[in-house]
Amino acid sequence: MLSIVIIGTGNVATHLFDTFLTYDTLNVLQVVGRSEKSLAYFSNKTKTTLLSSKIDVADIYIIAVSDDAISEVANALKKQNGLIVHTSGSVALSILDNNHNKGIFYPLQTFTKNKLVNFREIPICIEATHKKDLKTLHFLAETISKHVYEISSEQRKHLHLAAVFVNNFSNYMYILGNEICEEKKVPFEILKPLIAETANKIKAITPKQAQTGPARRNDIETMQRHLDQLSTKEQKNIYKLISESIQKKYGKEL
Amino acid sequence: MLSIVIIGTGNVATHLFDTFLTYDTLNVLQVVGRSEKSLAYFSNKTKTTLLSSKIDVADIYIIAVSDDAISEVANALKKQNGLIVHTSGSVALSILDNNHNKGIFYPLQTFTKNKLVNFREIPICIEATHKKDLKTLHFLAETISKHVYEISSEQRKHLHLAAVFVNNFSNYMYILGNEICEEKKVPFEILKPLIAETANKIKAITPKQAQTGPARRNDIETMQRHLDQLSTKEQKNIYKLISESIQKKYGKEL
Repeated sequence: MLSIVIIGTGNVATHLFDTFLTYDTLNVLQVVGRSEKSLAYFSNKTKTTLLSSKIDVADIYIIAVSDDAISEVANALKKQNGLIVHTSGSVALSILDNNHNKGIFYPLQTFTKNKLVNFREIPICIEATHKKDLKTLHFLAETISKHVYEISSEQRKHLHLAAVFVNNFSNYMYILGNEICEEKKVPFEILKPLIAETANKIKAITPKQAQTGPARRNDIETMQRHLDQLSTKEQKNIYKLISESIQKKYGKEL
Repeated sequence: MLSIVIIGTGNVATHLFDTFLTYDTLNVLQVVGRSEKSLAYFSNKTKTTLLSSKIDVADIYIIAVSDDAISEVANALKKQNGLIVHTSGSVALSILDNNHNKGIFYPLQTFTKNKLVNFREIPICIEATHKKDLKTLHFLAETISKHVYEISSEQRKHLHLAAVFVNNFSNYMYILGNEICEEKKVPFEILKPLIAETANKIKAITPKQAQTGPARRNDIETMQRHLDQLSTKEQKNIYKLISESIQKKYGKEL
């Protein structure tokens, strides 16, 4: 059985906690937080404590806090034995103390509060300096997920950047679509099956094969009409820049 | 029973044809195409003919061809009685002859060849000048789909533009993410569950609520690191413009 201390009380910490609890081979000894209030959710299911207080001895300490708090938390764990890992996509392994067993346990997903996630389908990227620690992380990751990848800090950095495009930026395209619907009094609802299918396509074909639309067809007339329709300079600039980039990408192929 | 002639042999025509065939109340009399070759798929299931040949008498003629061919096809149908509709998102009803019963039958979805679609979940936007024709379109649309909307040409124009953002442009964000993965030798596969969940979130919360990432948090440091990581000027420009737009949108709220 693997004994675990989770440091953090946000979305990632909470989702990991809920998932770990469902496995007999994982034992969450303690959740560590900044305030009694933030620990309320956890306190009737396991032991909780403040970062400044005594932290239990565990096999693995999982730091699931915001990027800029990782080094402060890692510092507070200095005296603990056991493996220390963080869960961030964009922070290198080197932020953790070299005199300590250390690693990365990065679940690549967007987590929403109060929305259950199925960890079996979530890719987990792991990294460690020592073979033994990597083995521990494999055990932990494979217990909860079907998709486990050994990814270096360098690779993870790029993966995180790619995730900004496919997640943050594509969501922003939904925002702009929603904005147009609101301005023009068309129900955004109508677009929801299209959004679902756009994402769904990528399971079977590459995004490059899936690309459609006026820019892909180099349909200048429709693009000009769209630009005229858009009401803000910002919308126009984004429409223009992305369309030009699509045209360039596919134009080269003609 | 509604008798139907489909003009067109592309994705939309094929998917409509396959769906219509499954309903006893719909009778596809004929499919009309440009060439024998393009009609091959249809010819052992119904009658087929070339646009220049004799077209059957039907209750409704569905023009499912590319936008710039609609008016030519409509012209060829001038002598037919019955309701003529087209299936385009961006072409106004006025392109069809005023002396004719006319309408729009626009299924708002992205269709892929050889990929089955479930029309019951696809929104269909309908429009007609005469009440009787609108009734016919309601019957046809409601036979195959649960989601039928009466949408004017003006609204449809904006809906189509919004669809470019949520479909074409979000797919292009997948392309850019894929590009980064290929350049940096990280499997794009790892991002697929994230893509699915990003789209999935929109079913329950608004895109504005769902927005996350460095631009949303105004995390200048991470954004600068990302810009340094990107290898082409084009990637950098898109990253910058979208991030600035997100920052502006959320900055106003702080």
